[in-house]
Amino acid sequence: MSTEFSFDILQRAGDSRARRGRLRTPHGVVETPAFIFCATKAAIKGLTMGQMREAQAEIVLSNTYHLMIQPGADVVEALGGLQAMTGWNGPMLTDSGGFQIFSMGHGSIADEIKGRRTPPGQSKGGNGGRATTLLKIEESGATFRSYLDGRKLTLTPEESVRIQKKLGADLVVQLDECTPFHVDRDYTRKSMLLSQRWGDRSLAEFARLNGDGRQAMYGIVQGGTFEDLRRDSAAWTRDRDFFGTAIGGTLGGNKAQMEEVVAWTMPHIHPDRPVHLLGIGGIRDIFMGVALGIDTFDCVSPTRIARHGWGLVEGAPGERINLRNAGFKADPGPLDPRCDCYACRTASRGYVHHLLKAGEMLGAQLVSIHNVATMTRLLREVRAAIETGTLGEARRRWVADERASEEAA
Amino acid sequence: MSTEFSFDILQRAGDSRARRGRLRTPHGVVETPAFIFCATKAAIKGLTMGQMREAQAEIVLSNTYHLMIQPGADVVEALGGLQAMTGWNGPMLTDSGGFQIFSMGHGSIADEIKGRRTPPGQSKGGNGGRATTLLKIEESGATFRSYLDGRKLTLTPEESVRIQKKLGADLVVQLDECTPFHVDRDYTRKSMLLSQRWGDRSLAEFARLNGDGRQAMYGIVQGGTFEDLRRDSAAWTRDRDFFGTAIGGTLGGNKAQMEEVVAWTMPHIHPDRPVHLLGIGGIRDIFMGVALGIDTFDCVSPTRIARHGWGLVEGAPGERINLRNAGFKADPGPLDPRCDCYACRTASRGYVHHLLKAGEMLGAQLVSIHNVATMTRLLREVRAAIETGTLGEARRRWVADERASEEAA
Repeated sequence: MSTEFSFDILQRAGDSRARRGRLRTPHGVVETPAFIFCATKAAIKGLTMGQMREAQAEIVLSNTYHLMIQPGADVVEALGGLQAMTGWNGPMLTDSGGFQIFSMGHGSIADEIKGRRTPPGQSKGGNGGRATTLLKIEESGATFRSYLDGRKLTLTPEESVRIQKKLGADLVVQLDECTPFHVDRDYTRKSMLLSQRWGDRSLAEFARLNGDGRQAMYGIVQGGTFEDLRRDSAAWTRDRDFFGTAIGGTLGGNKAQMEEVVAWTMPHIHPDRPVHLLGIGGIRDIFMGVALGIDTFDCVSPTRIARHGWGLVEGAPGERINLRNAGFKADPGPLDPRCDCYACRTASRGYVHHLLKAGEMLGAQLVSIHNVATMTRLLREVRAAIETGTLGEARRRWVADERASEEAA
Repeated sequence: MSTEFSFDILQRAGDSRARRGRLRTPHGVVETPAFIFCATKAAIKGLTMGQMREAQAEIVLSNTYHLMIQPGADVVEALGGLQAMTGWNGPMLTDSGGFQIFSMGHGSIADEIKGRRTPPGQSKGGNGGRATTLLKIEESGATFRSYLDGRKLTLTPEESVRIQKKLGADLVVQLDECTPFHVDRDYTRKSMLLSQRWGDRSLAEFARLNGDGRQAMYGIVQGGTFEDLRRDSAAWTRDRDFFGTAIGGTLGGNKAQMEEVVAWTMPHIHPDRPVHLLGIGGIRDIFMGVALGIDTFDCVSPTRIARHGWGLVEGAPGERINLRNAGFKADPGPLDPRCDCYACRTASRGYVHHLLKAGEMLGAQLVSIHNVATMTRLLREVRAAIETGTLGEARRRWVADERASEEAA
């Protein structure tokens, strides 16, 4: 492993598996636990990278699947790689492309993983929708149609690694088949084993290409909602030369099952490597994951919910408020009085309400700025709480419906 | 007139009517010639007010018509007035509401004024379209339907002044009937006289309300494309107690006629007051107007063309480049090498091309930032050129098709 990367566990909580860490990459240091913001198509929706820095974001990710289709990995490389192209110039992660191929391909997996229940075949087609574009899964890789122009594309583990090399993120991920929720144990097991073979091929190609040590690779734990499969998959990643561990695939249909699946997995992964929980980013979920030893999280939700007018608010029921509600029409207060982001310093709830109702893009921009800043503040407070042994207090401060949720769990 | 406002002419060009001025308002100083950016619904499309400051904008305007409908003047007042509500906290202007009532009402006037030729009756309805919502024009005022909910609303000169008082901009404008292009001399004359009577009523209500001296009012010169009417209307504003003069209504069907109309008007207005040219903001147009003595300009174009992928570039044919063009796909250069705005410092033409093609809102945001910064740089260079007597050189640098346009004129 290159000396350009390291992960140090600085401190452990006394009463949980929570840990305070420091992840070094060629493009900078990430203090963990950390939130990774999604720049899916090499852009955060609604914020410039300058605004991301101002909101104290530490690390962003982009999606191989989207970028291989548009503008293409060669174009990204010609423009200097993701960090230079986007102007972020900080730590970045790319996924392998697998998740989107399978979720957009099956038309229902993403919904299932996220607990939505759109029946297969009823999903929308077209760009940005969930057209059933997956053509076949073979031992060699996955073949699918470009959502952009219908081109037939094949993504193999080797090609995913080569594309991610051109994209140039610090942290890259092995190709896996993202197993859906509705399949049985036998399919989940076969899928997990395919992901393991793809993982070994990803690692081999990565070793061949990464002579300069500018990238580090995460293995992915699959195994669905089956305890033995999660254990086997975790052990498989532990016994391979990955830099980090990512927990992927379905985490079940509710928060209790998600916690259970993560809890099954954690004892069997490599204890000294950074652990990423893929696609999870609710505030309560983060407290859950941190307590189980998760180091990094990612989710599109902070900017996605912002575009629908939802602002994250510390301690609010459901973690957020809907700024489109008429009750905010003349509210002179900030989105969250505990927040000192640009939006909270300069805009009132009433102004944001007006912008959202008037269809002004600035409304989504301001709420997005606030939600990003709120997530970075949450993670700073989580890190401080681990250091001072006050994670429970932080959780009670941030999660208003804590008691109800614990009873439900 | 309040001592909170002043306009000083610091220097005059030797070879034209161009002048370098300083406009003081309760919310700050505007160095002129200046460009006023349009925050139509109390938001610049795509930029936060912080980004407007970073792009060195000096003054913005909002539209009374849009704000009286949504969120309503009382809500803006409750949220502290436009400067506080938007977080701009700098000099602002509001128009009277007249332009939108008549342009959106007739369904074709805005197009005609701007030289587009959509025949009446073929315009689109719906929000943001040009529904024929104007119900009647009477001596008392204009009655129209809200584009939002169909409510019947009447705007009188007095009501426009009262609404603008609640909105709280520094510079306000009398109510006028914005005379269309296609009408004859007789209609234009009658319309001008109605605007004059409305102007006197606007001034009277303004005198009644403006005891605190926190606002200053502009009179509007109408008169269409008729030299004698423009002269009469200019003299009318000169002989009234307005703080500034705005040139409104149709300026003809081409740039030569626009120049002619402004040239007819300028000798007859009050020579010591700031002069605003309503709705004009092309680069060549600004050089034209400055040479005739215009002090401020406004136009939605910098951010509107940005949303369609057009970036303003010094000296480019047509003043701009279309970043959606495939030729920019892998172009590593900045939008304009002469520009040091956030977008040009951090993003390449290739990246912006990708963002626009991928439908990422950040594409429009970056081009908007650039276009705003380009307009403020243009005006800084115009001011410096007046001071050094080099306006002609600045014009040749910025307007590539200068010779062709002069020949056409």
